[in-house]
Amino acid sequence: MADIHHAVPTDPSALAAATAAAMWTRDQTAQALGMQLLKIDTGRATLSMTVRADMVNGHHTCHGGMIFTLADTAFAYACNSHNLNTVAAAAQIDFLAPAREGEVLEAEAIERAAAGRSGVYDVTVHTDDGRLIALFRGKSARIGGEVIQGLKEA
Amino acid sequence: MADIHHAVPTDPSALAAATAAAMWTRDQTAQALGMQLLKIDTGRATLSMTVRADMVNGHHTCHGGMIFTLADTAFAYACNSHNLNTVAAAAQIDFLAPAREGEVLEAEAIERAAAGRSGVYDVTVHTDDGRLIALFRGKSARIGGEVIQGLKEA
Amino acid sequence: MADIHHAVPTDPSALAAATAAAMWTRDQTAQALGMQLLKIDTGRATLSMTVRADMVNGHHTCHGGMIFTLADTAFAYACNSHNLNTVAAAAQIDFLAPAREGEVLEAEAIERAAAGRSGVYDVTVHTDDGRLIALFRGKSARIGGEVIQGLKEA
Amino acid sequence: MADIHHAVPTDPSALAAATAAAMWTRDQTAQALGMQLLKIDTGRATLSMTVRADMVNGHHTCHGGMIFTLADTAFAYACNSHNLNTVAAAAQIDFLAPAREGEVLEAEAIERAAAGRSGVYDVTVHTDDGRLIALFRGKSARIGGEVIQGLKEA
Repeated sequence: MADIHHAVPTDPSALAAATAAAMWTRDQTAQALGMQLLKIDTGRATLSMTVRADMVNGHHTCHGGMIFTLADTAFAYACNSHNLNTVAAAAQIDFLAPAREGEVLEAEAIERAAAGRSGVYDVTVHTDDGRLIALFRGKSARIGGEVIQGLKEA
Repeated sequence: MADIHHAVPTDPSALAAATAAAMWTRDQTAQALGMQLLKIDTGRATLSMTVRADMVNGHHTCHGGMIFTLADTAFAYACNSHNLNTVAAAAQIDFLAPAREGEVLEAEAIERAAAGRSGVYDVTVHTDDGRLIALFRGKSARIGGEVIQGLKEA
Repeated sequence: MADIHHAVPTDPSALAAATAAAMWTRDQTAQALGMQLLKIDTGRATLSMTVRADMVNGHHTCHGGMIFTLADTAFAYACNSHNLNTVAAAAQIDFLAPAREGEVLEAEAIERAAAGRSGVYDVTVHTDDGRLIALFRGKSARIGGEVIQGLKEA
Repeated sequence: MADIHHAVPTDPSALAAATAAAMWTRDQTAQALGMQLLKIDTGRATLSMTVRADMVNGHHTCHGGMIFTLADTAFAYACNSHNLNTVAAAAQIDFLAPAREGEVLEAEAIERAAAGRSGVYDVTVHTDDGRLIALFRGKSARIGGEVIQGLKEA
């Protein structure tokens, strides 16, 4: 007889992957924007997104909101990788260079600090050939509950 | 014979409206996300957006990136209202309450400071019944050129 | 016979003033930097500081850290004005113009949002003749306990 | 006969050290707060400061403004290390843990991005035994001129 608890990951990296998979199915925004989850581990996540025609602003470059959304999504996967429900409390972004339609952007999130219920994550957004586009810093807040109910952090 | 210069706005409010209209036709992101431009004036803009099913994140609430994108767009219309090409150099957002699918969000941008080529704009995001969702502050940078070529700031 | 409870303020403005007075005696930094508390009310505080010779940086202008410290102090008095112990969780500042030795700076803090244990405060720093120097935004976090033990928020 | 040009550093690290030495003599704030310059190199600087009795706030912990000032000073030495006059345009700080009187704080600044006239620097503030106190991010702006006139970047 099937027992879901047989599937409980026993190490942090596997827990991060399981948590990301559970979040992804509910994450309509990431899917609608064509994001891909490239890497996931404890406190880290890398996502990519291709700049589409409907992501361009009034200056003919990628809308800053779309760059932010990619970075914010990488942040979300990194800060929920412990399987503890966590949301963004605040974020700050520096836009360093424009991105153009058709370019592939990658956002790499890494945990810089975690204390009590809050954490700080840095996200670097660059093109897939390494041109730096933006630097993002997010502040996370745990809100109670688990991403995958019944799992505990390994 | 038609002379486009007959159409040049002679007061700042009309110039802001003309500039916004020109930006809007090129702003694929604002259109794709179903935004509406409610008010525009010199250094000010108000936009609205309904939270759609494809704007929800892994926690079943409006994706922070979508809230940011609405605020960033209001900021863009406000900081380009002088008809001088201006982009976001940086932005910071505090997320204060979640928004849910179906809710109508409004973002009101206002110029707080302008000195040389840079400016600071504050954007308040709330639901259409007044619940505060987020506070955004953007730093703008003029990049040269005009939004509507041939027009000058009134 | 003296009863300290006779002194308990019964309105929010008086409570803010009493709280500020209690904080001031312990606030060695504000005193060392020669700050003055000009106004205090619920969620609001205005402080001033004269730029001294020992507040100048390597570019011969007022050190950004000193401008921040004045703004951060106004923020502290505003966010503790409810007599609930509150600290700065984060802050952001845009430096808009340099200030010079001998100039008098004023920082006006105002509460923009308060939800649960966190709040957002905006501080405007200008010279006493109205030149805008910096815009500051602080995020506060309540940490438990009262500034003046035994008092409750009116 | 003495010729000052004999002293022009021929490598970036030596230029950074010479620039820092020139800034230090004018930096009244760093001296008044008892800061020490521990390390300097191209795009990097580490400074320390002991939390004195006059750096404490109304909550009996190190004033956030003093922590910011230390971080901002490390940022200033890092971003001026190319001998091109550079100022802080904006900065953001997350306060992660309180620091107490008598503790020695260290701030390590590192250049994260530099494009045109602006740059982004990250500063980590920790106690000398490694406890993380704050994370700071600064945006720099070059204003023209050199820190040491007559020197060029090596």
